[in-house]
Amino acid sequence: MLGTILYGPGDVRCEDVPEPKLIHPTDAIIRLSASCICGSDLWPYRGLNEVTSPRAMGHEYCGIVEQVGSAVTTVRPGQFVVGSFCISDNTCPHCRFGFQSSCEQREFMVGAQAPYARVPLADGTLVATTDVPQEDLVPSLLAASDVLGTGWYAADAARVQRGSTVVVVGDGAVGLMGVLAAKQMGAGRILAMSRHKTRQALALEFGATDIVSERGDEGVARVKELTKGIGADSVLECVGTSEAMTQAIQCTRPGGSIGFVGVPHEVSLDGEMLFWTQVSLQGGPAPVRRFLPHLLDLVLRREIQPGKVFDLTLPLVDVAEGYRAMDERRAIKALLTVA
Amino acid sequence: MLGTILYGPGDVRCEDVPEPKLIHPTDAIIRLSASCICGSDLWPYRGLNEVTSPRAMGHEYCGIVEQVGSAVTTVRPGQFVVGSFCISDNTCPHCRFGFQSSCEQREFMVGAQAPYARVPLADGTLVATTDVPQEDLVPSLLAASDVLGTGWYAADAARVQRGSTVVVVGDGAVGLMGVLAAKQMGAGRILAMSRHKTRQALALEFGATDIVSERGDEGVARVKELTKGIGADSVLECVGTSEAMTQAIQCTRPGGSIGFVGVPHEVSLDGEMLFWTQVSLQGGPAPVRRFLPHLLDLVLRREIQPGKVFDLTLPLVDVAEGYRAMDERRAIKALLTVA
Repeated sequence: MLGTILYGPGDVRCEDVPEPKLIHPTDAIIRLSASCICGSDLWPYRGLNEVTSPRAMGHEYCGIVEQVGSAVTTVRPGQFVVGSFCISDNTCPHCRFGFQSSCEQREFMVGAQAPYARVPLADGTLVATTDVPQEDLVPSLLAASDVLGTGWYAADAARVQRGSTVVVVGDGAVGLMGVLAAKQMGAGRILAMSRHKTRQALALEFGATDIVSERGDEGVARVKELTKGIGADSVLECVGTSEAMTQAIQCTRPGGSIGFVGVPHEVSLDGEMLFWTQVSLQGGPAPVRRFLPHLLDLVLRREIQPGKVFDLTLPLVDVAEGYRAMDERRAIKALLTVA
Repeated sequence: MLGTILYGPGDVRCEDVPEPKLIHPTDAIIRLSASCICGSDLWPYRGLNEVTSPRAMGHEYCGIVEQVGSAVTTVRPGQFVVGSFCISDNTCPHCRFGFQSSCEQREFMVGAQAPYARVPLADGTLVATTDVPQEDLVPSLLAASDVLGTGWYAADAARVQRGSTVVVVGDGAVGLMGVLAAKQMGAGRILAMSRHKTRQALALEFGATDIVSERGDEGVARVKELTKGIGADSVLECVGTSEAMTQAIQCTRPGGSIGFVGVPHEVSLDGEMLFWTQVSLQGGPAPVRRFLPHLLDLVLRREIQPGKVFDLTLPLVDVAEGYRAMDERRAIKALLTVA
């Protein structure tokens, strides 16, 4: 079959790879209904994370179960399933505490930019729908696998509540999903920080009430102005840079909460500053599995359309163009057709 | 009257000072029923915070209202009152959000190691009891002013719930109050980290279920052992050093929460480490005013005895010995009689 391999910075190729096989009795093999490229795939693509050997790319997936190992009991061939980018058993103490992304058996999904993929710990990781969903829902169901679940976690960690004033730092796909999540959680006001017209439009469509196009100190000043000098109850930091984190902290009211989901790159926080600002801070790889049943339900009832975040669709053979388009910010997020 | 003035590192004196007077119409003058020395008083006493000019010490207080300014409406002369070490109007947006320690009009109380003190913003800051309480309750009511309220906030910020497993890092007065707070909030298990016999005994009396006498990596290993490898749901960091914060983070389960109330001195937190540990972190000067009505109620109903944290009682004239005793860790916390 075809698959996506990253060889080094800027060098991603669609090429022949072996079809995945069951390795452990807890595995499942799925035929993907679609795949996509994640913002986090750009870190190694840009050479910011080292690539020491060729790497099978892709960790977002949904599709039809083809085959299951002998120990798998909760999903069966023919079912449509969505799983998290974090593989988890969903039974260990960390999973039961709602942090499946710190599962004692955690693995990260690989090789999903391909027509078939192996999903370890299928019982813990996969959530099956009752019926095979209509074709047009696939992009939104695929989004639940990571980007939506991650935006949702950002809002959850930032403790968004009914009526909250929310700031979203970062207008990438995750930030836009954060806007959608905050809206679903009942936020009264959602300030999206973005200076790109198409992303602003999508943010507004997902529920943003205000666009802040200024950045840095000016952006903070604008947020303060829009919140009568108080700051936001909840801030979603969806970038991972030191500038974004500083901006997030400065936008937060004393006692307000920040959820951060961009993997921090060279971010250092001063303890005394955190003390005096009194912000609550929580981040990490999103425990998507916790949210999946609810997110699938929202998509299947057509209450949310996170799939709109895909503004470029390419066949798998053109995966390299998808990486380029996202790297150059010509696309927010690229969907890959794999059939 | 006598008052306490810090002149420089190690140089604290009880000497004649002017009696406080009303300055603003929102002030009250109180006659203290007792005063005490705070762990945070030791920072400038030890020269770790610079002392550029003589400073009137003391920020913990309770007592009888002597006089009120013309704008004060909620307390009157003759009433017994307790106030927070943070002066607040209790009406601004930050106060209404429960973070009175970030009040738009915040001031820090000064000059309370004396028989009389001026309390600014009396309406917002002071809480009066219905009757003048019995004499033996004074130490516990005084504790509510800062040390109890701060330990309580540590437990609140660490999101202690019924059944939680809690670790308290730091066996100073605040840490011991953190144990008491966690107990009151229904914690199922409270691990107090201490290697001092008298402090261990007090921790057990306040509700600790386990004592961890190891420190650093060994302390973390012991906490992990006692929690079946999982870590604690909630950790109260009541010290303020880098070592204590690291220990706190390592003792917390993924997705668990840390409340930190020791003013951080040279603490720097790595963003990526916070990301992967998934801990929730919140700290700051305690919004004691939020908790005061409940804390006074618990003391007046004799359900808690935080006053037991005072293990040394001295007359005000001997205040310098109180500082020495606390500095040398001969005393946990010194009560000052000021009558």
